[in-house]
Formats: sequence, structure tokens, C-alpha cells
Amino acid sequence: MSSATDEKVFAALNEFFIEIPSWGFANTGTRFGKFQQAAAASTIEEKFADAAEVHRLTGVTPTLALHVLWDLPNGVSDVANIQKLESATGIRPGSINPNLFQDAEYKFGSICNPDPKVREQALAHLIDSVEIGKALRSAEVSLWIADGSNYPGSQSIRRRIDWMKEVLRATHKALGPDQIMLVEYKPFEPAFYHTDIADWGMAMELSRDAGPQARVLVDTGHHYQSTNIEQIVAWLLSCNQLGGFHFNDRKYADDDLTIGSIDPYQVFRIFSELLVEKTLRGGKSFPAFMIDQSHNLKGKMEAMVQTVCTAQELFAKAALIDQEKLAGLQDSCSLVEAEELFRGAFWTDVRPLVREWRVARGLSADPLAALRESGYMEKITAERKEKNAKGQSSYA
Amino acid sequence: MSSATDEKVFAALNEFFIEIPSWGFANTGTRFGKFQQAAAASTIEEKFADAAEVHRLTGVTPTLALHVLWDLPNGVSDVANIQKLESATGIRPGSINPNLFQDAEYKFGSICNPDPKVREQALAHLIDSVEIGKALRSAEVSLWIADGSNYPGSQSIRRRIDWMKEVLRATHKALGPDQIMLVEYKPFEPAFYHTDIADWGMAMELSRDAGPQARVLVDTGHHYQSTNIEQIVAWLLSCNQLGGFHFNDRKYADDDLTIGSIDPYQVFRIFSELLVEKTLRGGKSFPAFMIDQSHNLKGKMEAMVQTVCTAQELFAKAALIDQEKLAGLQDSCSLVEAEELFRGAFWTDVRPLVREWRVARGLSADPLAALRESGYMEKITAERKEKNAKGQSSYA
Amino acid sequence: MSSATDEKVFAALNEFFIEIPSWGFANTGTRFGKFQQAAAASTIEEKFADAAEVHRLTGVTPTLALHVLWDLPNGVSDVANIQKLESATGIRPGSINPNLFQDAEYKFGSICNPDPKVREQALAHLIDSVEIGKALRSAEVSLWIADGSNYPGSQSIRRRIDWMKEVLRATHKALGPDQIMLVEYKPFEPAFYHTDIADWGMAMELSRDAGPQARVLVDTGHHYQSTNIEQIVAWLLSCNQLGGFHFNDRKYADDDLTIGSIDPYQVFRIFSELLVEKTLRGGKSFPAFMIDQSHNLKGKMEAMVQTVCTAQELFAKAALIDQEKLAGLQDSCSLVEAEELFRGAFWTDVRPLVREWRVARGLSADPLAALRESGYMEKITAERKEKNAKGQSSYA
Amino acid sequence: MSSATDEKVFAALNEFFIEIPSWGFANTGTRFGKFQQAAAASTIEEKFADAAEVHRLTGVTPTLALHVLWDLPNGVSDVANIQKLESATGIRPGSINPNLFQDAEYKFGSICNPDPKVREQALAHLIDSVEIGKALRSAEVSLWIADGSNYPGSQSIRRRIDWMKEVLRATHKALGPDQIMLVEYKPFEPAFYHTDIADWGMAMELSRDAGPQARVLVDTGHHYQSTNIEQIVAWLLSCNQLGGFHFNDRKYADDDLTIGSIDPYQVFRIFSELLVEKTLRGGKSFPAFMIDQSHNLKGKMEAMVQTVCTAQELFAKAALIDQEKLAGLQDSCSLVEAEELFRGAFWTDVRPLVREWRVARGLSADPLAALRESGYMEKITAERKEKNAKGQSSYA
Repeated sequence: MSSATDEKVFAALNEFFIEIPSWGFANTGTRFGKFQQAAAASTIEEKFADAAEVHRLTGVTPTLALHVLWDLPNGVSDVANIQKLESATGIRPGSINPNLFQDAEYKFGSICNPDPKVREQALAHLIDSVEIGKALRSAEVSLWIADGSNYPGSQSIRRRIDWMKEVLRATHKALGPDQIMLVEYKPFEPAFYHTDIADWGMAMELSRDAGPQARVLVDTGHHYQSTNIEQIVAWLLSCNQLGGFHFNDRKYADDDLTIGSIDPYQVFRIFSELLVEKTLRGGKSFPAFMIDQSHNLKGKMEAMVQTVCTAQELFAKAALIDQEKLAGLQDSCSLVEAEELFRGAFWTDVRPLVREWRVARGLSADPLAALRESGYMEKITAERKEKNAKGQSSYA
Repeated sequence: MSSATDEKVFAALNEFFIEIPSWGFANTGTRFGKFQQAAAASTIEEKFADAAEVHRLTGVTPTLALHVLWDLPNGVSDVANIQKLESATGIRPGSINPNLFQDAEYKFGSICNPDPKVREQALAHLIDSVEIGKALRSAEVSLWIADGSNYPGSQSIRRRIDWMKEVLRATHKALGPDQIMLVEYKPFEPAFYHTDIADWGMAMELSRDAGPQARVLVDTGHHYQSTNIEQIVAWLLSCNQLGGFHFNDRKYADDDLTIGSIDPYQVFRIFSELLVEKTLRGGKSFPAFMIDQSHNLKGKMEAMVQTVCTAQELFAKAALIDQEKLAGLQDSCSLVEAEELFRGAFWTDVRPLVREWRVARGLSADPLAALRESGYMEKITAERKEKNAKGQSSYA
Repeated sequence: MSSATDEKVFAALNEFFIEIPSWGFANTGTRFGKFQQAAAASTIEEKFADAAEVHRLTGVTPTLALHVLWDLPNGVSDVANIQKLESATGIRPGSINPNLFQDAEYKFGSICNPDPKVREQALAHLIDSVEIGKALRSAEVSLWIADGSNYPGSQSIRRRIDWMKEVLRATHKALGPDQIMLVEYKPFEPAFYHTDIADWGMAMELSRDAGPQARVLVDTGHHYQSTNIEQIVAWLLSCNQLGGFHFNDRKYADDDLTIGSIDPYQVFRIFSELLVEKTLRGGKSFPAFMIDQSHNLKGKMEAMVQTVCTAQELFAKAALIDQEKLAGLQDSCSLVEAEELFRGAFWTDVRPLVREWRVARGLSADPLAALRESGYMEKITAERKEKNAKGQSSYA
Repeated sequence: MSSATDEKVFAALNEFFIEIPSWGFANTGTRFGKFQQAAAASTIEEKFADAAEVHRLTGVTPTLALHVLWDLPNGVSDVANIQKLESATGIRPGSINPNLFQDAEYKFGSICNPDPKVREQALAHLIDSVEIGKALRSAEVSLWIADGSNYPGSQSIRRRIDWMKEVLRATHKALGPDQIMLVEYKPFEPAFYHTDIADWGMAMELSRDAGPQARVLVDTGHHYQSTNIEQIVAWLLSCNQLGGFHFNDRKYADDDLTIGSIDPYQVFRIFSELLVEKTLRGGKSFPAFMIDQSHNLKGKMEAMVQTVCTAQELFAKAALIDQEKLAGLQDSCSLVEAEELFRGAFWTDVRPLVREWRVARGLSADPLAALRESGYMEKITAERKEKNAKGQSSYA
């Protein structure tokens, strides 16, 4: 590390952490089938072990997002097991993710279901999730509501807004003082005509209606084609309503590809908006950075380590921008100069600097190579391959 | 008229009015050129005359939207002229539309321009527009802000939010007690990287920030591909923030085609949401219905009459829906029954009924045929053809 | 039936048949889970029974598309079983659909896989499918190749074109004289960066390269947002390369919704292009009409009957267009008159006429009501409900 | 230059040339208005002068695309003037671009117009353009056909295919032995329902039908959202039908922004496909690289120099890819390794190397800075500012 610029980047990297999801180590697929991976994790113990290995290699993933239905199938009574795993691995439980899309009861919706009994059941699960969060001292309860309808006229868009508000207010009431409730939005899938929380405007309205501890969660894959996501980030920051991110990339729909694999410049622009908040507007901390990807073909561990390194490098690029100077060029409408300053940071190859930072922290300079050399992949493949049987289609 | 259903449709039609725009009679084009029409209007007198003819034929277009820069180039001092035309034609001035996109000063933005002098100039024009509205006793001041940027990094998305809020608050302060300020949104064009008011969430935030007499304007062509517009309508209604519509249709971008010419079922669904508000939730009145289209190839008068008739017919179809019964089927999640009830109304051919309604009001059964037989087209073609010279490109 | 127009529509309906897919009666879902239906079919016997009931009710679905992997798991040796079901139910085997996406070997592609052994395996399955088609005297072997890649640089787009051509040529060679090989295209899903056959241009190039008995299959849900599908139909007709359709509707991606449920006007426009070929250009027969939908929430039988009726009604609307007169208006560039003539047919309520046609053929006037009254649903629900257990996610 | 890699990049840069368009120096805008630039060129003399300055600064823009209607308004008789400018500036005439969209006759189409007289007029203009190309010894006649329709039913998509083929065949017949006819495609704008040449499949069919000297032109902004353009490039290469590129970038529609300003990774991927052809498949030369952008806000000269430098840098990045090694990783389906190798080239900062190459050729290391220091901008501003008057809207 030699220059003032390098110091700025190191300082930024020191503050950069990103949460990885327990389901990122498990087998996933599309509706046309799953290609099982020999090394995929299927138990919560395996998921914690994999997460610990990613953290050992990268140093920036201290928390693991948990999915209530899959990781704590017995609800609050599974908390002790998680705490044991936390002690054993040093990985802290991250955001708590309820599941309101899988059970047969939710066929026509969960918190938007016309049947009040189903809505009550959904609320009970949400409150369980809040209680799990309290018990695990996890900050975020992260809600993705998959509710919607497939055909015009088949459901009342309007009344479902009212029902949803009721449940979210009740969930908010259950929050402990240190908890935040995140409201995620998504335009479509699994519903294909209307999704009850389809965009950031709806999510923010629900968040504000629910109460002061609610915020909006931005999943980078959950937008219409061509949406300017960094602008939504700027608006949410200006409204003090940005709670966190689910990072992933996409070309077509909610493809859940590796961050920056399709459009790396967009990730850079999003990070830049967050750094504007910090540098120029006195922002205290970043919103929660979380990964939510579905590596159907790439090796799970490999993809996770690659993801974390890419996120870090794109963040380092954004940290290179001289925001004060940029603001001056923007003020004078010096378009080309401003653009060149901005993307000059993107063109800079930060990989050497990030490697330097890793070494300075006692980490491997190249976590992906270190993973390959560690023998960890061979170990878990041997342990798990029998459990990970042949692919299966969800189609027929 | 024979049945209870017919009476319901007639009652709905009695409440249906739609505003037509002065610029809808003038020559328009794309950036690649304008094809001049011999019968196009170029003076405000001609625009009032054409509007009066459309109202004579259809009976449902009593007001004419005015564009300040083009129709009142001298601002408030042109009010007397407009009043004279109102007296002469019986057409009332409708929404007042400021122009903040055409003057050279607005190259880098109007109310979001980094230069405070340009923002002041823009505010002055907005306040002039409010004063014109007061003088003409027009209810709506309708703001479309074309501001944005073309390249990442070239402008501060974030600070422009602050500047915009300041100007809109100041504009709201100038409103008279009977005025409403409409805030329109649009994702792109003429700006191609970021548009300062890009979606309904941003427009609603600005509207609420500005004050209680502000509302959101929905232009049906101003959405990302595949956006569920009727859902946005339902949300705006539930937030009491829906102020009005600019109707038009599109297949690709902001194509400004005739209403219902590409996706008539969508218009029907939007009207249905408005009728839900009225029928089931005690809504008192509809938001402002306005046309905003660009007939580059169709004859201006022909297209306008066709537009009004199509809007009326799609509204009549929506009025056929038995909303109470539909709500019951939605409640029981009888998906196919609900869908069939809903679109059964769409399949019904309402043209005979609308013709009957027209005749009952002393209008021509077929306004488009009546236009062709009236001799009006020949008259204005003869009067105007010399003024309407050869096409010109805006490209080179 | 009273008028010349009615006769024209009756004549058109007499020629209208549509193939339904065996998988349309089975449980389906999204990657987030399947909601099992009590009455869903899981055996080929049940699928033939359901298809026979749909044909009994509608009279226009004499054939059933078969999926080799799911319906003939033992390949050619299952042919006798299918023939037995054909005799028992009167339903003829329709298009034969190979499956090259589900087996673990196809993780990195089937006919585009860099491994020649996998490509050979895929070719063997294709040739098996051709043999099944011969044995069953089915006309179409219908290929959907799901191959693609998820990340830029991870596969050679270019070499995969060569490999694909080789396999398709070899498959074509195996065709009997009465067989047609259909090549389907799809822009994305399950692959999310590149899909080897992504659009009609690629499919047509492959079809022509394969040989004279190959044609292109258009799945209406397999296009980019806003694509003009009827124009692609017109081009394929003009190139004599249109082989058939997979009908379904969509709002966002490949949503596989019921035909005409989102954009009925588009279906009407597609049918009109086919009728132009027949009426004005001496076309002898229609391409194969097939349904390919995924009814995750609607009842399977209900949705299938609704689909067939809707397809028939939209076809009847298109048959109402006076194509000769329309051509004249198009020639004189009478835009509004041409448009009004064209969509006047769409506005016409053809339901009474189609009901009349059904009654004249000894069918129920309202097949959906007839299904509900038939007791068939109750019967199969009782028989199958135990097999159709709880929902399952393909996600975790 | 020190390493084998550097030599490879230098060799690639030695072969990289890009054509700039005469209209890129002239005032442009959107349908909402033009913001006139003081330094914009309005005569062909000014355009040649500006082009010569860009070539002096960058060394890679030896040719200037010409627009027949704007640059040779008197057709062939203007050839002598162009030749004089060629002698004076050293800039060679590049592609010849007919204009079939601006004249009033083309309101309902040019080569697809139902009126045979209009089609003849269009053909005459095309043949004039071919003759101009011969006289100027320019290789490419580059056709963009803006024809289309705005409303379903208003034109016959099918017959227009036939008419178009006739005219293009006749144009091809007029070509000299060294001429190529490029056929461009575009999905929409200025037509908003159907565009007669909407995608690469249609363009390739027309090109093949016209004759052996026809090829397809890819404009990077002329695709549906999310289209994989590099795949289309791979297909056109595999069909020996790729003739050239119009480079520009876009976020929403045909935004005509600076190359790589929105999605630089995509440009890199396109260049990589071209280098695959050269490196692995014996390709002899690149297709024509041309710029087609519309700098409405950026300074014309600044934007052009920035464009050329960016294109060069993205090309240098692509040249860094070790295509042989990549092919091996693709063959073994080593997804993550292949991806990392591929985008490792993209992450590399090639700016120092490109600067080195420029200095080695006697050029300025930083052409944009050199432009600013040259005094050229001040000179042309002083000369031209009076001609470049106030903005004007094409809307009203």
C-alpha cells in the first residue's frame, strides 16, 4: 500500500462484509430439473461448515443467512442447534428468512390470501421467525412474499393490499428493539400476472405503513428489464428506507447468476451511490449486503468464493472514485470529464490492491486458488456424494 | 336499452368524459422526421375549432388540454384570447401543461439543473402556469418533467432529488384552493440513462412531499415492458394519490399510439380497477381522463374521434362487470369462474349499446362516419394545406 | 347459422383442431415448488383418459402430444401400450417430444455438449423418438433443445452451432417419409446467458440445414418482450418454414399461461396471418396447432377445456375478417378504415356462433359447464387424490 | 512494449480501424427538441474537417460515412465535391447511406410501399446511391429501411416482404464488383407496430435473397431488451453473412449513446466473437466497424474522440484473451476457470498499453486531452456559432 488512493481503498475494504445464504450451498435448479452436485450441502451442519470455509478463505463473510423452513424446521426449538453450530464454527446467524411460498396452504397466497385462516397461519410463521431472530440475536428478519395471481380478474389486487398491511403491521409489533424487518419486492415469478409486492414503491409503502423498524430490501435481480437500479438505491437512501441488498446478476428474468457476471458496471454504479451517502452526506453505515444466487451449474463452494471476491473487487473500484471532485464536474455539467472520472475507477485493475489487502490481513491472496489447493472440495465430495443423487424435474 | 345491465352501462357512460389535447391536432413526428398533414392545426384558434368538432360528434370531450409554450406563448397575457375561444366554441380550457424541455436553457435539466438560475427560471414558468390555470378556472396543472441524464456519473441522481423537491414545494404553494398539481413519471426519453421522475414510486414521493393538492398522473405509455399498470392504479387509489391519466397505447417504448390499438384488454383492466373503487369502496369521482397521443400517420381528426369512441367502448365493457359477484368468486379462489366472469364482459360486443346511448343523447350513432360525411375534413384541408408544408427531419 | 359470414366462420371451425399435451394433465410448478392437485394425472392411462374427456366435450382435440421420457420411459417397447390406449380411447398419439434436458448427463448441454459421447447419447434418444413416431404413425417429432450456458466465456457459442447441426442432420436422416421434424426456439430458461437455439432465425437456419422435412415450431411464450410474433409467422410462411405452434400466453417470461389470458388480441393477429395464407395465397393446410401450458393453480381439466374453447373463439373471430376487402384498404393506405375492419372482427362476440356450431355437431354448447356437470372431476379426484401428495420445492 | 501479450495487443490494434459518420458532427436531438451546439458542423466541408481532426488525433478513423440526402443532395453530381474534400483532408469516403425515411412520399413506406410508383422512386434512389459508391470507390452501400406500420391490420406484413425482396434484388444487380450491400435491421422506431426488417433473421433472409454481395449490418442498439448480441454475431459469422457494425450503446431503446457507456462488457464480448473467428477459424478480415451515435448533449468532437478511444480500449481488452486456452477450458466444462480467464482480460487495465501504442505511432497518448489543448474547438465554435441557432422541437 503506497498512495493516498490505496489507503482509501483499504479503508473501504475494511468496512466491507457480505452475508452468504445457507441455501447457496444446497442443490438448486430450475422448474425443468435439478442437476445434483456431489459436494452440495444438505444439512444445516454442512451449510455452517461450508460457510466457515468461505469465511476462512475470504475473511469477509462472518454471517450466514438462515431459511426458517429449511434450516430450522422445528422453529424456535431449533435455535439451540444453531447456537451450537455458531460456537463450533464462529459463523454468526445472519438474516432470518421465513418461507411463505412452499406449503400447500399458500397456493392462493399467504398474507394476501382471501382466507383469513391462511393469513393467520402466515402471521404465526412470521412471528415465529421474529422470535427466532431475537433468540439468535440476528438483526434482520427478511421477508420475501411470493404472493400474487396468474390471471386478470382472478384475485382482488386492491383488497390484498389491505390484508397485507394488516399482517405486516402485526409482524412489526412483534419486533424486538434491535430488529429490522426487511420488505423485498419482485415483479414476477412464481406469480405471472400480478405479484402483490411488485416494485420498490409498493415495498416502501408497506414498510412505512408497518412501522419505524421496517426497511426495503433490494434484490438486484428483481426488476423489469432496463430499470435503473442505482437510481432506486438513491431514492431509498434519500427516504431513509434502504435496508439491504440481495445481490445477484441477471440477463433476462430473476436468473440468480453470480454478481457482476453479466453487467459488472451496474454493480459498480450501485456501490457508488452507497459511497456517495457515506462520503458526501454523512451516512454512518452501509445497508446489509447479502448474496442470493442460485448456482445450478457452477460448483457451490467455488461459486461462493468467486462471488465474494468479485463483490469485493467491484466495491474497491467504486471506492476509487473521487466523489468530491466528481460532484464538482457534475455541478458544472462537464459531462465527458465527469463520465471519464467516474468510469476511470471502473477501468482500473484493482485486483493487485485487493490481493495486497488480503495478504495484509493474513488471508490468501487468491481465495479461489486457495480453495482448490485446500483439499476441502475433495473432502466434502467424498462425504456427501452418496446423498446427492440423480437430477429431478419439477415439471412432470 | 332494455335490461338492468344496459342501464348500468348507460349510467357509466353518462359519467364518462375525456379530455383531448390541443397538441393532438398539430403536426407531430419522430426524431427521424415529421410527415406534415394538410389538415393539421397550427394556431390555437384551429385547435379549439377541431376540439369543438370532436365534442360535437362525440359529446364527451368538453375540455381541451393546453400547452403553455405552444398555446399561450405570452403566458398570462394570452388568457383573454383563450377565454374568447372558450366563449366562441363552448370548449373549456382543460389541464394546463407547462413546458420545461424545449428551451436551450434546459439542456442539462430544468427543476433538477445544477445551476440555481435555471431552476429559478423553471419555477417561474411553473408559477406562471399555475396563474394561467387560476385565470382560466382550470383544475389541473399537469407537470411532465423531462429532466435526466444520458451517462452514468455525469449527474448526481441524489442531489437532483433535493432540488426537484424544493421547486415542487414552491409550485404547490402557489396553487389556488381549487387547483391540483399532477406529477407525471416516465422511465426514459428524452433522457436515456436516468430520468429524474422515472416511476410511480418517485412521483408519489414527490407528490406527497409537495403538499395535499398534489397527485400522481399515470401515462399508460410510460412504463417498463410488462409492467402491470392496473396494479399501480390500485396502489395509487389505495394511497389516495391517483390524480389522472394520459391515455395512449404502445408496443415498444413511449409509442403514443391510439388507446387500445395494441392491447385493448389492458385498458379494460385499468377501467375495471377504477370501477372497483366506485362500486365497492365508495369512490366519489373518477380521476381526470386525458388523451395524450401522437398520430404521425393517421389523420388527426379521424384519429381523435376514433380514440374517443374506443375509450368509451372499453369503458362500457368494464362497466358490464358484476363487481360484487366477482368479489365473491375471488374470495373463494374460484379462479376460472372469476376469470370467465371478468373477461366475459370484455368479450361482449358493446358497440350496439354505445350507439344506442349516443342516439339517446342526440348524437350520431357512428361519430367516425359522421365526421367523414360532415365535410369538416375538406373544409380545414382547404384552409390549412398551404401552411402545412413538406416533412422535416429533426436529425440532420 | 344464417348469413354468409356465419357460414364462413362455420367452415373455418370445421377445419380447426388443436393438440393437447399429455403433460398438461400432470402436476407442474415453478422452481419454488409444486402445488399438487388431487385430480392430476400421473400415469399415461390417466392422461389418455383425461384427453378423451376433453375431446368428448370439445370435439376438436383428437390427438395427444407425448413426452418420450415421461410417457414412454422404455422407449420403443412402450409403443404397444400407447397403441392399446389409442384403441381404448380413440385418441391418437400426436407429436413425439424427446427430452434432452432432464438427465444428469445433460448438465452442460445435450446435442451441443463439448463431450462427443453425450452428443451421441442425445442423438440416440432423438433417433429413438423418430422410431417411436414411425411406430405410432405420428407426423411430428418436436424438438425443444434446452442447451445453453449461464456465463459469458464459459462455453463456445460458435462451436456449439457446428455440433448442433451435425446431430440435427443425422436425426433428419432417420425420418420416415411422412415425418416432420420441428425445431423450437426459446431465448432463455433454463439457460440464462445464451440458449443455443434462441430465436426463429437460428431455428430456421438449423431447420434448412437439417433437410427438407424440417420446419420451425413457434411457441408463443418464447420471445423477447414486445416481439411482433405475427410478423415472425408471416416470415416463416413466406419461407415455407412454419411447422407448428405451441400456444400459451405470458406477461413476463415463459409464463406458460392459458392462451389469450393476457393478450387475446395477439392470438387473433396470429390466426389472421394464417388465414391470409389460406384465403389470399392458396395455402392448403394449417400448421400444427398444439397447446403447451403449465397450469400450476387452475384445475388441469378445467384449464384445458377453457383453453380449447378460447382458442376456438379467437380463431372464429379471425375468420370473420374480410381479407380481400382488408387487402384493398391496405393497398390504398386507408389506415383507420383498415384497422377498424380488422379489429371489428375482434370486437364481435362470436360466442353465440361457436355455441351454435357445437350444438350442430352434437356437442355441448358450453363445454366448461358440461365438464362441471359431468361428474368426471369428482370421479378422478376420488381415484387419484392419494397419489397426489404434498407440494415440493425444487429449490432446497 | 515488453511481453508476448503486449505484442499480441499491439498487433490487434494495428488492424483496428473504425469509420465515423458525417452526421455525427451535426446537430441531433429527440422528437422533443434539439439542443443546438455552437461547434456543430452543418456543411459537408465542416464534416470532413472535423473527421480529419479526429483522425489526426486518433489515427484510426481514415474513412467518413456519407449520407446521400444530407451530404450529396444533388446525388452523383456532388461526387466531384466529395473527391475534392477527400484530396484536401486525406479522409476517404466511407459507406454510402441512402435515405428512404425523410421525404413525404415515404409516409407509408419506401421499398415496402403498396404504391408501385413510390417503390420505383425508392429503387431509383438506391441505384443512385450505388452509383455514388462506385464513383467514390466506396465499398459499402448501407441500407437502413425505416418502413413499417403503426397499427395492426393497417398494412399487409406479408405482401410487403415480397415488394421488399424485389427492390433489394434490383439494387443488388446494380452493384459493381467491389461493392457490398449491407442490410440493417431494427425492431421499432420510427414504426411502432411492425418494422419490415425487424431482426437479424429477416435481414439475413433478404440479404441471401438479394445476392452474393449482400451482407447483414448489426447495429448494437437495434435489438429487443436482453438480446444476446454476441450470439447473433456468432451465427452471422457461421453463415458468412456478417457485413459490418453500427456501434453505439443503449439502456432502453435505440438510445444511440456512446459505445460502452452503459454496458462495456457486452462490447468486449462482441469483439471476442470476432477474434474467435480470426484466431481459431482462419478469418481473414474484420467486418466493417462503424460508429452510429447521436450525441445530443455531449460536445460532438469530444464525444467522437472519446468514442474512438473507448472502442480501441475495449478491442484491446478482447485481444488479451488467450482463445486457445479458453477453448480448452470450454471443452472440459471448467466453467469458473473459463469465465475467470475470459473476464480476466476485461478486468485488465489496457489504457497504459494503448497509450504506448499511440505514442509508438506518433500520436498523442491521450487524444481527448490533445483535442482540448489543440484549440480546434475554439476555432470551430467561433466559425460556426452563428449558424447554430436556438433549439427546436419536432413535436409542435
